This record gives sequence, structure tokens and C-alpha cells, in this order.
Amino acid sequence: MEGLKRLPKLNLHEVTKKGSPTEAGPSDPALQFPAELETAERLAQQIRFIVEVDRLKEIFRQTVLINSRRAENDAEHSWHLCLIVITLAEHANWPQLDVLRVLKMLIIHDLVEIDAGDTFAYDTHAMANQHEREAVAADWIFGLLPADQTREFRALWDEFEAHQTPEAKFAAAVDRFQPMLLNCHTEGAAWRRHGVNRDRVIARNSHVAEGSAALWKYAARMIAEAVAAGHLDA
Amino acid sequence: MEGLKRLPKLNLHEVTKKGSPTEAGPSDPALQFPAELETAERLAQQIRFIVEVDRLKEIFRQTVLINSRRAENDAEHSWHLCLIVITLAEHANWPQLDVLRVLKMLIIHDLVEIDAGDTFAYDTHAMANQHEREAVAADWIFGLLPADQTREFRALWDEFEAHQTPEAKFAAAVDRFQPMLLNCHTEGAAWRRHGVNRDRVIARNSHVAEGSAALWKYAARMIAEAVAAGHLDA
Repeated sequence: MEGLKRLPKLNLHEVTKKGSPTEAGPSDPALQFPAELETAERLAQQIRFIVEVDRLKEIFRQTVLINSRRAENDAEHSWHLCLIVITLAEHANWPQLDVLRVLKMLIIHDLVEIDAGDTFAYDTHAMANQHEREAVAADWIFGLLPADQTREFRALWDEFEAHQTPEAKFAAAVDRFQPMLLNCHTEGAAWRRHGVNRDRVIARNSHVAEGSAALWKYAARMIAEAVAAGHLDA
Repeated sequence: MEGLKRLPKLNLHEVTKKGSPTEAGPSDPALQFPAELETAERLAQQIRFIVEVDRLKEIFRQTVLINSRRAENDAEHSWHLCLIVITLAEHANWPQLDVLRVLKMLIIHDLVEIDAGDTFAYDTHAMANQHEREAVAADWIFGLLPADQTREFRALWDEFEAHQTPEAKFAAAVDRFQPMLLNCHTEGAAWRRHGVNRDRVIARNSHVAEGSAALWKYAARMIAEAVAAGHLDA
């Protein structure tokens, strides 16, 4: 749906009266104000981005859903993280957290995987150049947006990747907690398929504590119970 | 993972010293402070909610994805709406919008469908008692949370359903715009399968304008192009 792309360039000399979009209708752009055309072109560009990222729903992960046991995709994962944030924000290590910024980071954090693909958290080979691959993908996907939003979304992604601010640390904690939670509720499906043991789970995920000590404490008990139940190798 | 449910009730007479969770460990709850146990039980209750809502990923809708053309599910849809909000908030009819509240509404708006099921936007029979069915489902799903969050989430859902505040109007606009966008990028797949025509699409969705005049203007053109392309009956 690229209709707005095909609009003729506005000839300023033809704008002889105050064009009303209601009177002129969308099929008569020459009668519209330049500012309104700019808004329409900006919106069309933003919507092309919104259409492109539909593909996040087709990027599948290693974790499986609790009921059907099919592979989870990145869009579902991102939604689940947002739900976790608005439910568990009180357990962050900081009483004053900018929850809106946490949500923005998590809504966009996996968009780079549309181009770079999902990297399994325990695939050390693929992880070696993961950030470089994803940075190239970030240039492309956020570059679809108007320039000011390219900068805004890229800054959010860079902040998430750097794990330095309280918001990024809590976002990262939730991003690591959720796959553990799904693993623990699917008899360790992804862990067992890839032969991951307790030490690797703890090494990979203990930084959850940097975002939420309470969440890591819960996770540590959950991991211990998974080992006790035979769902995770000791 | 119901480990915290099985914790013994705390006997206050046994709390004889300031219990440190680091020293005592999670396996020794009798040495922990009541406040900490309350936090742990609250967190466990919240996580049971987070586990339960994993089922949103298995509630399928009538709209299909742009690339694979498989049915979209509610979790993916909810994520896409969040992405649209942070991209298009500037086009809301109000310059000062509480984007965080819009996001919270959209993250939880379809949770009632875990119990009540998805109701197709053009299924007038199912829509007749939709709100009643969903209100019962809301009692159940939000009731899984601690009481203060039951109230908070239910208030967000009620606000969304009432379509009265600027935030609810913009959230509703995005919730109606996104399926139209997917339909227009899939040759009207869901519209054609259900024999929906232009007048019904316009009647069902024109309240997008109450949340964003710019978005409805874009949608109206998109609908006109779908008709012109033969993807939607006139």
C-alpha cells in the first residue's frame, strides 16, 4: 500500500487558496498545505516501517510455548516482556524507573533479528559476531523511519545493548528471565535440546540480578527446582 | 513452577534475629523477615499470572500475516499495536498523550480473549454479548494478580473498553487501524473470506478518527485503494 508515495510533488505556485483536506479530498494533494503534505508523507514513511516489522512475527526462537509447545516467535516474546515489565516493575532495583523507556526498548529490542536472525543465548559461536551483525541490521531497520525517529529508536537500542542505565538493566533482566520461565514450564525443552546445564544457565543469566535482585532470587530457586526435577543437568 | 506456594507459613515467634536472605538462603524462610516473605509470595503470585497469559500466543485472529499468510495471534497483534503507538503517537488528536497508559492498555487489552475467545470485528452475532463475556473473563484473569494490581489492570481495561479518554480513543484507533493495514497488505484476505464490503469496513472503523484524524485519513485512502484493486467489495 504505497499510495502516498505516488503523490505528485507539490508545486508551491499552484497553492492559491487555503486548501481544506475535507473539501479537496485526498485525491487532490495540490490543494493541500505543504505542512499537511509533509505530515502525510511522514506518516506514509512510518507506516512502511510498521509494515516491514510485521516480519518479527516470523522470527522463531529456541524457547517453546507452555501449552502447544511450538517455538515462540520474537513478536510474542516482545509482548510477553512488556507484560512482565508492567507487572513486575516494582521489583526493579530502583524505585524510580522510567517504565515507558523500558517498554520502548523492549518493543524494538529484537527488530534487528528480522535481518540478523535470532541468536540462541547459548550459541557461543554465533554470539561472537552477534553485535556487529545486529548493528548493521539496526542501521537498516531504524533507517526506514524519518531521521528524528531513526535517531530515537537507534538510541533506545544502543541503550538496551549497553546494559548501563537502570532502565536497560531491568529490560535486560526481563529479557533473560522470560526464556528461563518458559523453559522451567516446559520441562527444560530448549535447555535439554541443546544440552545446556545449570552452570551455563547461571553464567548466562545471573546478570538478571543487576536489574532485579528479587527476580534473580526467584530465578535461582526456579533453576534449582528444574535440576531437582531432572529438567536441567546439574 | 509453584515452589513458593509450598513455603511453610511463617511463625513469627521463630523470627529471633534479623534474617539475611544471602546468609539464610531461600530454603530457610523461617529466618527471613515477614516483609521479605510477603515480597516473595507477591512475586510468585504475579509470576503465576505471567505464566497463565502465555496462552494469549495461542488465541488466533482472522487477520493474516503479510508474509506467511498464517493467522495472526493476539500476542503478536498486541506487540504490533505497541510498536505502532511508539511510532505514531505524534499523530494522535492530542499533543499531550500519556503514552505509557496507552501502552499499558494495549498490552493487556486482549487478555480477556484467553477465556472469552477472539470475536471477529464483523461478527455481529458474537458481538452482541461480547462485552458481557469479556467482563467475566476480566474478573478471572486480572483476579490472578495481587488485589492492588487487579484493580489497576481492570481499571485500564475498563478505560480502554469505554473509549472516552484521549488515551483510550487513541488505543482503540490503533487497535482498529492495524487489522485494516494487514488486510490491505494481504489482498483483503480476512475481508474477502468473510464477505465484508467497504461500507461495513468504514462503519466499523471510522471511529479511528476520534483517536487520530490523520490515521483515519490514511485509512480511508487505503480502503479506497483496496476497493480499486478489487481486494474489497464496493
